[in-house]
Amino acid sequence: MTKDFSKYAPGYDIPALPGMRLEEVQTPALIIDLDAFDHNLVKMRDEITHYGVRHRAHCKMHKSADIAQLQINSGGACGVCCQKVSEAEALARAGIADILVSNEVCDPNKIDRLAQLPKLGARILVCTDDLSNIAELSRAAARHNTELEVLVELDCGGGRCGVTDSAAALELAQAILTTPHLRFAGLQSYQGSAQHAYEYAQRKALLDTAITITKDAVDLLASHDITCEIVGGAGTGSYPFEAASGVFNELQCGSYLFMDADYRKVKTKEGAHLPAFKHALFLLTSIMSIDIDGQAVCDAGLKAHSIDSGLPTVLDRPDLQSLVFSDEHGVLKDRANSLKLNDRLLLIPGHCDPTCNLHDWYVGLRNGFVETLWPVTARGKFY
Amino acid sequence: MTKDFSKYAPGYDIPALPGMRLEEVQTPALIIDLDAFDHNLVKMRDEITHYGVRHRAHCKMHKSADIAQLQINSGGACGVCCQKVSEAEALARAGIADILVSNEVCDPNKIDRLAQLPKLGARILVCTDDLSNIAELSRAAARHNTELEVLVELDCGGGRCGVTDSAAALELAQAILTTPHLRFAGLQSYQGSAQHAYEYAQRKALLDTAITITKDAVDLLASHDITCEIVGGAGTGSYPFEAASGVFNELQCGSYLFMDADYRKVKTKEGAHLPAFKHALFLLTSIMSIDIDGQAVCDAGLKAHSIDSGLPTVLDRPDLQSLVFSDEHGVLKDRANSLKLNDRLLLIPGHCDPTCNLHDWYVGLRNGFVETLWPVTARGKFY
Repeated sequence: MTKDFSKYAPGYDIPALPGMRLEEVQTPALIIDLDAFDHNLVKMRDEITHYGVRHRAHCKMHKSADIAQLQINSGGACGVCCQKVSEAEALARAGIADILVSNEVCDPNKIDRLAQLPKLGARILVCTDDLSNIAELSRAAARHNTELEVLVELDCGGGRCGVTDSAAALELAQAILTTPHLRFAGLQSYQGSAQHAYEYAQRKALLDTAITITKDAVDLLASHDITCEIVGGAGTGSYPFEAASGVFNELQCGSYLFMDADYRKVKTKEGAHLPAFKHALFLLTSIMSIDIDGQAVCDAGLKAHSIDSGLPTVLDRPDLQSLVFSDEHGVLKDRANSLKLNDRLLLIPGHCDPTCNLHDWYVGLRNGFVETLWPVTARGKFY
Repeated sequence: MTKDFSKYAPGYDIPALPGMRLEEVQTPALIIDLDAFDHNLVKMRDEITHYGVRHRAHCKMHKSADIAQLQINSGGACGVCCQKVSEAEALARAGIADILVSNEVCDPNKIDRLAQLPKLGARILVCTDDLSNIAELSRAAARHNTELEVLVELDCGGGRCGVTDSAAALELAQAILTTPHLRFAGLQSYQGSAQHAYEYAQRKALLDTAITITKDAVDLLASHDITCEIVGGAGTGSYPFEAASGVFNELQCGSYLFMDADYRKVKTKEGAHLPAFKHALFLLTSIMSIDIDGQAVCDAGLKAHSIDSGLPTVLDRPDLQSLVFSDEHGVLKDRANSLKLNDRLLLIPGHCDPTCNLHDWYVGLRNGFVETLWPVTARGKFY
């Protein structure tokens, strides 16, 4: 996945070139601290070894085929997750060989595209929560003479997609097992709303429920001689619960690799931050106006980062606070008027997933120099 | 600006093809109701004729060179605004000949690129609020033997960029007038925070102040024999105030062309909606899960629209309400369980600007059929 940069120039299609200093990178730009990134990669590998579970890294967060490959090759991941067929297409074409669309795919055109993907040599898995959907998946796989692996999604408390009781899960699993061109792969059980429950006790209560619901379904299926190869779920905020449950065997963490300001608020049992994941993703921004006393305006607005989960914080500058972000501007409180025009700051985004989707490139930095550029392969792939 | 669609297929790089029915468009996709769009285009042309002012249409909202050309050719606009050098580059390369970067440009690399743009045959204008910035702009224009037109930005109450008193504006205007390769073009005075002040009285109070500040600066400059060719500002929420002020001569409206759920809350003096602009922009979404009683899940999450100014509403379906939007999902309250899998809805986005920036294409629809596709030319151009 080497990229030829010769036709690019900073500021046009690309924010930087390898070998540049941080000061030369065009702003706003997504910066990856490669030392912190490597640390997080290895830390998660250690975690899954410790717990004795697999990790299917979630790529909806970074949308980069290069990073997915590193998660598999160096991070111990068994494969990847994504959320959309067009993401799976982008990853499969870039050589990722084991891809779960951890989501329902219902549109006939999208199902047709999904059913073609195994032809690229990739193992393709998808979730379902509906009987008619299972029939559609089968018809499309038959049309292309491929096989799709299907997980039944449980609503384990998130209140979004998934069947709401074990009997319904059993009915769907039995349907998959008797439907040609489909293989029953197990259960998908992700408690999304628990990920950002900041307090440990609150998170534990949600996960206790999620694990009970999941265990009930696994047990009911087992009593009908149906084995779940995969019992998958978990995110960065919750994975120690699923990993230690004895019920789940595959984690699906994504944000651990970059972290963001919102995940920094999630506390362990002892009241500490999430174990040992470092902030690896930053938004580099420049100061562009300082006329108003006590504040400075930077060039990173809503088109460069997402504020849906709260405002960014400023790296190593507790004296500066985020005030207001509009389409193209960010206003920072700078009581001491310390900032000058063209000063640069590294922001820690409030929410990494939708922020990454706004950018075409990651700028990988080590020791103050640009070491690599990774395209955001599946940027905008929401079909 | 004809686009060859032959190499595309829906779902890959493009959500639709001309001639398709709405039901065939891949979701999520940005839909433009071309009848409403044409109505809004003509309505603003009538407004500027009525008030006797120019309109420099703001392209930061739509980021489309095709739409910018229509605003000039059919909508009576004298030129366009954008916010970033990379947007100006994209528009100039597509043939737009009169472009104001209605923002400060401070980074030396960006100033250098800006100073090259007049070579493409475009009139290029930019704002400033700093003396050292004026010197930088001049050096870059000298280097490329071009001329930049410069407006002094006033902070007329928005509290973001711009000088905070008329004496400072005079000092900057005099500096521009005596600096080679620059031409003083007038004043930029945009009250951003007034645009979404929903109540008329609240908006009037903010605009009375903004107009007074602007008039003070115009008068002070006039008393020093400095004429402002442009006194520019105004947005969709405020333009009748600036247009009728006798102080402003150039409006900079953008959102009027598409409208969004937030602008719909802005009230006229009589308590009505903004005069006669119709919703022309919609987010087409499909239902993908209906397992939970009283709700349905659609495929338009935070990566397909921005919720920073509030949640979307559902066109023609007052029985449905937006509940929660996460990265890839939207949860709608559907008390009557009326929605089925693959049902399609048109959402009215909460905030059009950052929503458009998430998409690569506009799908132009008339009478239920796709009439045209317009690329979001400057999507992601935030450098």
